Amino acid sequence: MKETLTNANFPQDAEGHVYHIHVKRGQVANRILTVGDHLRARAIAKHLDHIDFEHSSQRGFLTITGRYKDIPVSIMAIGMGNPMMDFLVRETRAVVDGDIAIIRFGSCGSLTERAPPGSVIVPKGGYCIRRNIDYFCDTPLHSGIQDMPYLISGTFAADPGMTELLEQTLTKAMAEHQEDIKIGPVIGGGLNADGCSFYSAQGRLDPQFWDDNTQVIDTALASHPTTDALEMETSMLFHLAHCSKGTVRAAGCMQVFADRVHNGFIRPEVVAVLEPLVGKAVLDALVLVEIEAMNEVGTVWEKKMKV
Amino acid sequence: MKETLTNANFPQDAEGHVYHIHVKRGQVANRILTVGDHLRARAIAKHLDHIDFEHSSQRGFLTITGRYKDIPVSIMAIGMGNPMMDFLVRETRAVVDGDIAIIRFGSCGSLTERAPPGSVIVPKGGYCIRRNIDYFCDTPLHSGIQDMPYLISGTFAADPGMTELLEQTLTKAMAEHQEDIKIGPVIGGGLNADGCSFYSAQGRLDPQFWDDNTQVIDTALASHPTTDALEMETSMLFHLAHCSKGTVRAAGCMQVFADRVHNGFIRPEVVAVLEPLVGKAVLDALVLVEIEAMNEVGTVWEKKMKV
Repeated sequence: MKETLTNANFPQDAEGHVYHIHVKRGQVANRILTVGDHLRARAIAKHLDHIDFEHSSQRGFLTITGRYKDIPVSIMAIGMGNPMMDFLVRETRAVVDGDIAIIRFGSCGSLTERAPPGSVIVPKGGYCIRRNIDYFCDTPLHSGIQDMPYLISGTFAADPGMTELLEQTLTKAMAEHQEDIKIGPVIGGGLNADGCSFYSAQGRLDPQFWDDNTQVIDTALASHPTTDALEMETSMLFHLAHCSKGTVRAAGCMQVFADRVHNGFIRPEVVAVLEPLVGKAVLDALVLVEIEAMNEVGTVWEKKMKV
Repeated sequence: MKETLTNANFPQDAEGHVYHIHVKRGQVANRILTVGDHLRARAIAKHLDHIDFEHSSQRGFLTITGRYKDIPVSIMAIGMGNPMMDFLVRETRAVVDGDIAIIRFGSCGSLTERAPPGSVIVPKGGYCIRRNIDYFCDTPLHSGIQDMPYLISGTFAADPGMTELLEQTLTKAMAEHQEDIKIGPVIGGGLNADGCSFYSAQGRLDPQFWDDNTQVIDTALASHPTTDALEMETSMLFHLAHCSKGTVRAAGCMQVFADRVHNGFIRPEVVAVLEPLVGKAVLDALVLVEIEAMNEVGTVWEKKMKV
């Protein structure tokens, strides 16, 4: 730890850098493409007109800010899990002026034969599957839920307009794809489920642990029959946008890596073709979102007058 | 993605590397010191007799394996959040033979005046504070909990023997400390609370979001009055050890960074003194844990006969 922080409620250093992502006002644009993997972020950043700012924080966040089709955007890699999405939304909200548009580009397991490995899911909303810690306790505190090993939440909607834009740019990118390796289709209209872990909450069976999760996916599907995707971040993004008092709008898409119907997995050569196409299509959607431009004065993307 | 994976239930490549941490059998010792921060892991690794293996995975995990006082140990950095702890416990469990001892060395917020910034908390157990997603839904699914914005779980115990060892080595290290900068004391016997986020579930107030969390810490303390520490990983470690069918034993300690009683923060110069002392004391405790040695054949720490 190098910086001196003063406020335990919302730690920021003297220059206004937030604690974990370590960015300050003017370093993050109000259009954000977020991924898990740092390498994926760097690959997508090659599509930018130019990069004005790049920072990899000690706590695992990578921020790359520049322009795409002359519009300021940030590409941010956050690692994995709901807590990391929480850091992203709250710490960027603290340093960006006005409304924010965030599109998540993730990878997921598929629960539907309509979306095999190599396809892309664009959920219209999401919910969470969380391990009920109390079920596994000797002395649970909440008697109303003590018999449920996993809690399935209600849903949170993605922004409809952003989701429609995203489906359009993805469908166009897939249609223009000419290589031998088959990718697609783009599957919209269903739901994403965030597991609180990759393993137990997503119904993966591991005899080395007490998980009682053989029924978790069926239970989730009974409440939410249109669930297409399983991953760990996108539903939390929708949830936090819902709780942002109207200032954060969010959409998401995920390439299908794991086939949870037939227990298959995507091949690396398919990822190599799919990922760059999806990354560019997300940027294309992001710059089409109608959102007021941030005042550029003092930002890293400010266009300086040549003297 | 470079590797070809075949099993969507528990993905491993052809060599047996687990998917996210990307280690295989023989690369992780059955004594593990785990931290969040990669720089902290590398600093602690300087205490090892020698390093036999080091790998930083694309998904954000760092594994360093070697010997300390001639005993094989691994130092693993996992980033932040309950999901990352889940990856650590499950993916190491999959590649290590026999029982595993894990000690977490974290940083935390303190809820007690007994543990100011610069002190070290050694909890005897932990619980989780989780945002109740359903409370914020338009159409919640679980009627029994819909009025509670946060769910406070029951507790999970740390391994008593390992916890006692850890308190002893930490107390000794602090007592031997001679520098001007005051550190300590070591505070044992209380509980750690894992928040599902750094912000809302830990009672941090942010007017930009709908959180309804002004009461969350008081609610947690009402159920668990001996709570000393707030962070994001250690209670999940205790929980997963509890669910490991007796094969994973765990303890933890955390240096106090944030003073949540008086809203203060640790100074960098205190961290610079405290962190190396604690890191070494944790290694000292880890090698004292009674646990059967792994068969060294084929491991990275195998002592080869000189020919």
